[in-house]
Amino acid sequence: MKKILVLNGPNINMLGTREPAVYGNITLAEIEKSLSSLAKELKVEVEFFQSNHEGKIVDKIQNSVNKIFGIIINPAAFTHTSIAIRDALSSISVPTIEVHISNIYAREEFRHKSYTAAAAIGQIAGFGTDGYLFALRKMVSLM
Amino acid sequence: MKKILVLNGPNINMLGTREPAVYGNITLAEIEKSLSSLAKELKVEVEFFQSNHEGKIVDKIQNSVNKIFGIIINPAAFTHTSIAIRDALSSISVPTIEVHISNIYAREEFRHKSYTAAAAIGQIAGFGTDGYLFALRKMVSLM
Amino acid sequence: MKKILVLNGPNINMLGTREPAVYGNITLAEIEKSLSSLAKELKVEVEFFQSNHEGKIVDKIQNSVNKIFGIIINPAAFTHTSIAIRDALSSISVPTIEVHISNIYAREEFRHKSYTAAAAIGQIAGFGTDGYLFALRKMVSLM
Amino acid sequence: MKKILVLNGPNINMLGTREPAVYGNITLAEIEKSLSSLAKELKVEVEFFQSNHEGKIVDKIQNSVNKIFGIIINPAAFTHTSIAIRDALSSISVPTIEVHISNIYAREEFRHKSYTAAAAIGQIAGFGTDGYLFALRKMVSLM
Amino acid sequence: MKKILVLNGPNINMLGTREPAVYGNITLAEIEKSLSSLAKELKVEVEFFQSNHEGKIVDKIQNSVNKIFGIIINPAAFTHTSIAIRDALSSISVPTIEVHISNIYAREEFRHKSYTAAAAIGQIAGFGTDGYLFALRKMVSLM
Amino acid sequence: MKKILVLNGPNINMLGTREPAVYGNITLAEIEKSLSSLAKELKVEVEFFQSNHEGKIVDKIQNSVNKIFGIIINPAAFTHTSIAIRDALSSISVPTIEVHISNIYAREEFRHKSYTAAAAIGQIAGFGTDGYLFALRKMVSLM
Amino acid sequence: MKKILVLNGPNINMLGTREPAVYGNITLAEIEKSLSSLAKELKVEVEFFQSNHEGKIVDKIQNSVNKIFGIIINPAAFTHTSIAIRDALSSISVPTIEVHISNIYAREEFRHKSYTAAAAIGQIAGFGTDGYLFALRKMVSLM
Amino acid sequence: MKKILVLNGPNINMLGTREPAVYGNITLAEIEKSLSSLAKELKVEVEFFQSNHEGKIVDKIQNSVNKIFGIIINPAAFTHTSIAIRDALSSISVPTIEVHISNIYAREEFRHKSYTAAAAIGQIAGFGTDGYLFALRKMVSLM
Amino acid sequence: MKKILVLNGPNINMLGTREPAVYGNITLAEIEKSLSSLAKELKVEVEFFQSNHEGKIVDKIQNSVNKIFGIIINPAAFTHTSIAIRDALSSISVPTIEVHISNIYAREEFRHKSYTAAAAIGQIAGFGTDGYLFALRKMVSLM
Amino acid sequence: MKKILVLNGPNINMLGTREPAVYGNITLAEIEKSLSSLAKELKVEVEFFQSNHEGKIVDKIQNSVNKIFGIIINPAAFTHTSIAIRDALSSISVPTIEVHISNIYAREEFRHKSYTAAAAIGQIAGFGTDGYLFALRKMVSLM
Amino acid sequence: MKKILVLNGPNINMLGTREPAVYGNITLAEIEKSLSSLAKELKVEVEFFQSNHEGKIVDKIQNSVNKIFGIIINPAAFTHTSIAIRDALSSISVPTIEVHISNIYAREEFRHKSYTAAAAIGQIAGFGTDGYLFALRKMVSLM
Amino acid sequence: MKKILVLNGPNINMLGTREPAVYGNITLAEIEKSLSSLAKELKVEVEFFQSNHEGKIVDKIQNSVNKIFGIIINPAAFTHTSIAIRDALSSISVPTIEVHISNIYAREEFRHKSYTAAAAIGQIAGFGTDGYLFALRKMVSLM
Repeated sequence: MKKILVLNGPNINMLGTREPAVYGNITLAEIEKSLSSLAKELKVEVEFFQSNHEGKIVDKIQNSVNKIFGIIINPAAFTHTSIAIRDALSSISVPTIEVHISNIYAREEFRHKSYTAAAAIGQIAGFGTDGYLFALRKMVSLM
Repeated sequence: MKKILVLNGPNINMLGTREPAVYGNITLAEIEKSLSSLAKELKVEVEFFQSNHEGKIVDKIQNSVNKIFGIIINPAAFTHTSIAIRDALSSISVPTIEVHISNIYAREEFRHKSYTAAAAIGQIAGFGTDGYLFALRKMVSLM
Repeated sequence: MKKILVLNGPNINMLGTREPAVYGNITLAEIEKSLSSLAKELKVEVEFFQSNHEGKIVDKIQNSVNKIFGIIINPAAFTHTSIAIRDALSSISVPTIEVHISNIYAREEFRHKSYTAAAAIGQIAGFGTDGYLFALRKMVSLM
Repeated sequence: MKKILVLNGPNINMLGTREPAVYGNITLAEIEKSLSSLAKELKVEVEFFQSNHEGKIVDKIQNSVNKIFGIIINPAAFTHTSIAIRDALSSISVPTIEVHISNIYAREEFRHKSYTAAAAIGQIAGFGTDGYLFALRKMVSLM
Repeated sequence: MKKILVLNGPNINMLGTREPAVYGNITLAEIEKSLSSLAKELKVEVEFFQSNHEGKIVDKIQNSVNKIFGIIINPAAFTHTSIAIRDALSSISVPTIEVHISNIYAREEFRHKSYTAAAAIGQIAGFGTDGYLFALRKMVSLM
Repeated sequence: MKKILVLNGPNINMLGTREPAVYGNITLAEIEKSLSSLAKELKVEVEFFQSNHEGKIVDKIQNSVNKIFGIIINPAAFTHTSIAIRDALSSISVPTIEVHISNIYAREEFRHKSYTAAAAIGQIAGFGTDGYLFALRKMVSLM
Repeated sequence: MKKILVLNGPNINMLGTREPAVYGNITLAEIEKSLSSLAKELKVEVEFFQSNHEGKIVDKIQNSVNKIFGIIINPAAFTHTSIAIRDALSSISVPTIEVHISNIYAREEFRHKSYTAAAAIGQIAGFGTDGYLFALRKMVSLM
Repeated sequence: MKKILVLNGPNINMLGTREPAVYGNITLAEIEKSLSSLAKELKVEVEFFQSNHEGKIVDKIQNSVNKIFGIIINPAAFTHTSIAIRDALSSISVPTIEVHISNIYAREEFRHKSYTAAAAIGQIAGFGTDGYLFALRKMVSLM
Repeated sequence: MKKILVLNGPNINMLGTREPAVYGNITLAEIEKSLSSLAKELKVEVEFFQSNHEGKIVDKIQNSVNKIFGIIINPAAFTHTSIAIRDALSSISVPTIEVHISNIYAREEFRHKSYTAAAAIGQIAGFGTDGYLFALRKMVSLM
Repeated sequence: MKKILVLNGPNINMLGTREPAVYGNITLAEIEKSLSSLAKELKVEVEFFQSNHEGKIVDKIQNSVNKIFGIIINPAAFTHTSIAIRDALSSISVPTIEVHISNIYAREEFRHKSYTAAAAIGQIAGFGTDGYLFALRKMVSLM
Repeated sequence: MKKILVLNGPNINMLGTREPAVYGNITLAEIEKSLSSLAKELKVEVEFFQSNHEGKIVDKIQNSVNKIFGIIINPAAFTHTSIAIRDALSSISVPTIEVHISNIYAREEFRHKSYTAAAAIGQIAGFGTDGYLFALRKMVSLM
Repeated sequence: MKKILVLNGPNINMLGTREPAVYGNITLAEIEKSLSSLAKELKVEVEFFQSNHEGKIVDKIQNSVNKIFGIIINPAAFTHTSIAIRDALSSISVPTIEVHISNIYAREEFRHKSYTAAAAIGQIAGFGTDGYLFALRKMVSLM
């Protein structure tokens, strides 16, 4: 059974309590539950990983070589500051999809730039949980 | 039956022949056919409109007031140059989703800026036809 | 009887329904009515033209050569993006006055730049209908 | 009888002799005389104040609290350099209108930026004395 | 007989009356006549198209697929603002030559940037009618 | 008994009435009273000076040479525009501490730049009266 | 007893040996001892945490939810590069005060920008240990 | 006997004590004495005026109309921030020469820009008293 | 017989071997031969000069005063860096035409700026030898 | 025996598999082996450390105080984003040499900026393993 | 007898014929004659050198080591583009004075930047021959 | 025997006397002697060329085609200003290595940009003579 790695960056674990006006009331656990259900339906395995540490995300990406089919990543704040994650994504050859819960283009200007998007197939922003579910379906369709 | 307007900007009608290395071989007719099928399944109506004229797109947005539930828009080149379309979207109160066929973040820098995204719920880029289908499902889920 | 052309750019036809917090509740028809009354009083003719099409505005400007005394223009979104309208205004030799309904200097930064103002006698912004009426009186005083 | 404060910034007292190609031949005394006549007609009081000192203009704005209905200001060179005047205008709660004699948008680029316009209802530029008269009428209409 | 499309952008139809200090006294009709004579001599067909509408120029470019050998384009104001025309030129595969009547490099800075030149074989600016004639000869030499 | 000069720039005299959402309800008199009490306790003298005139602040700084031990300055709007005050502070050799009532880093971008901070020992922003009291204690600790 | 978290970013643990010309000879242990004494006097608890890892600081901020009253943070180098810490501070709702030992405004330009200050009540820079003590007193005064 | 106005901007009165490493040990009185001697020799009158107030310098320039032959100005910090002084110089028609005591081009970058130089015949920087003497001789040679 | 000077800047002598993907296989000798033939036909004289030395090109331009009718120049890399050549062209009064072999607008961004074009009648780029021949014909038409 | 610390930043552990077109086929183990051999020959000890964690690299630098003679560092992606590593290098007093495997100046523009190089003796880029060997020899020569 | 080197950059040899509206009618020979007379009077030797070659100016500066007392330089166009001349001036230790014939601050913006002024004692611009004479007197006063 | 060309740009011939605080006391002759010794050992020939003339360096590069194996270049000031040298390096097909004696990244910002590095294999900066020796060894290893 093919595996998809779902990576979430800093502060995504705070969802539900963190600035609900921006991010809504849903929690990361609920997002992961939705993804698990869909994965079951699509007959793929999903592995979840969240970290506030840029280095741990880079490690995780590297260690997933040959173990996963693709990566769904919401780099959160690291989207705009981490060349290391971009390089990690470029250094392995698995399809990647970038997800953002909020519409980053309607927020502060420094959230409009993405280092990581250029290393991905595409980006989806502003649709909450649905962005992740879309990414999972899309990933499966690439298999 | 609720109606969704699917707007496509300049040169999208050239899909299939236009720079296939960037945009793939699929045609706009095929995208619209996929959307129609899905719309049928989701029991909503879709109306298609493509134009190379900024003004016609603005007209269309204005004229759709009270006739549609939401807009799925791929403004293409106008994404980066049209304040008029942004203003038109802001001037009516229907949910809007921005779609791009290619991953605009891996192309020329002038394609990274979006005037229109700030007037939308969110943006999806890089997934070809699937971006439109996602947008349609999302739109229906908002009803 | 001398004629004044009153040109309105994209989305001005939406006045009254469009973002009333920014633009107020007055409609374009009401603005035009006020201008007509004043024109009668000042014994001049006014012609109204609104378009969401940059090209139609350029056409209109060109076609008005030798038929009008001056132009009152609210280029709206085209203020900030259209070199074509600026060139059209420069290419004919009639006095032009630029009007904005809202105070564009208290809004987004991209609304502060004007391509067209340099081709006008002056600019008035932030006074709603009164800006148009002022422009008409001023225009007549130049006759 | 309600009072309107008419503030003029640096070098406006030189009108008539100062660069007539840019500013015309009219003098500040003549502008003030026109405003006085109109004020009489509109049954309001006007107080005139001109200074080449940023600090005196700030003082004047502050001291006018509770004594005036509104401010008509031509900050001249201070438009582009004075955050102190902007803050003074924001610190009192009376309507303000910004006037410029010449069309600042057809001059040097450093004259296009306005610190003060964001603290005003609107701005009128390029119409000489008429800009002041318009501002006075508008101010009275707000009463 | 092979056909060359000669496209002219906004305000080019005003040549002769428009700012003669910049553009000279020649009219578009005269330029087209010169091109027709040369075309006859070179045994090619020329089709002329001028529009003040960005959208019509995009339409025309798209519709010329398989009907023309090449395009000679003077995008005028659209040179500096239209990504849509650039994309239209890229979306078809015919040789394109960009022409400007005046030397855009000796004018305002915003006229120095060209979106469209990158989609052309080359650019010629500052030589009036001769630029068009050169382009035509060059085009024929590519056949 | 050593003397500390407490300088306040433009519009600080408006505290209490000026934009209370930004600056709170405390008045300059109250701030000065708090400073006087603390000065008594710390056995130092304080002299207060507020002006809306850049020139008067420069004069005051110059005239305080050999009469004071240090300067506590809130340059307000002049923080961002006055090289003259920076030069005045550099031209005398007494320790200086910069104070801001509000958190200038959470406001408009033009309030983030400080000409004067580089001529000071340090800066404290966002703590209202407490910032002044801290500065006074710190100044005394340097004696 | 209420608890205050004192967070120090990268290289602050090197104080005393690190560039004494810039940072002085005091050590972090000494700063913490001073804070402990003051905390005792003010009858609050302080918890110290220093890390060179952006991720550990984000973790610490998140884990302190409901356990602390406020945060005193010297993000050091992360001030200028970490959106993740800014987001972590925004994601919990406790008052935050930003401290810098040196006057960052008199150093390299890249040290003038702060991502984190916008998420704080205020900032104090250039006063060594005293900045921390001030922040503690201020924090207690907010209880 | 013709008169030359010698204007000095903020902090020039501090010469001799102000940052001697940058400005040397000479005082303004000594500079003025040297200028007086030379004026006597050249049979012209000189009037000295120094102010830390931008407004007083603008006033002085305006009031000197028809009373002086030319202006020698060292605007000091106002060189880089005052559009009002530039406008004042442009508003009267007497020759102006700009002098700087230090070589402003070897100092902070914000001291390289001059608003006032464009309104002068020329500029001399870096030669202390000699710059003023040169300017006086030059001014006399223009009579 | 009138003479035209044909100036070529650095590395143009390497044509044919230099980056043929960019510049094609033609050599400078071949270009000069084509120009000689055309000159014969047009009954004018051409003088060729190529140098990798900015100074020699400036010398050549200066020395050609009164000896030539006009200059055809391909400044190559000096287009983007040499104010000296621009000044030399401005300092003599002969018509100048700027030629580029490749389409500089489709190459690196630093090749888009031209110091020299503002001192020329016009510019032609991207047409190889034909650009030179066009320039020669145009030059002769100006006689 | 003196020790040299060889630090490698994020994704350097992926060498050999990571983008071989950019980085070649050699692995980090092979580079370390070459360095070990040379160290033996030069009679110095080398310690290797690679991490994808900025914080761990900062920790390592700090902990090496008094244990090593110098540092050879390839900060990889952190070169362009980490002020923390720059500060760590500045906070200890051992010679540092910056190494890059690829020629970063021929890659994306964001790879041209180095925060860390200013804290090093020098930088060597583009020579693969040889850059490290050079750095080691140079380091030994400084003993 | 001490020697002063007078260096003139590109196109200065064209004075008298070159753009007289900007540079006046005086020739370089006349300037040199004036300098010779003054040198005689001041009992110093002057050597003149003009070149359109950046390299020759660098050579000349280097070769003058130990042979001259100081340098008077008008780098002309090289002022704004030559780091090599700046480095040459820094590499020898003789006083340098920068002279410009025209007021470069009232011309194109690219003429406002000076690489060389930072390596000089000071700069004088806009006074024609007098600037050179001033520089010579100043140089002699430094002996 | 294969030949390597060692090119040094402007002012490198001044080494030893030029700003020893920046460049050290070693002379160019000593660097060349070290390179000669190493070349002998490596059994290759080296040719030395230094010039203060950009044009002579371009000439030299062009003339070395087919005569040398590779180029070691220290373009000095031309690194940051010469597109002509970059083009010359690109126009021949021999490996190039860029050397800088000082660490240009710890100096003025205008020395951080390199036009030439993108045309080289790599760059080494900050290691004095050793940078040249490394480059020579590297070059030989490429044979």
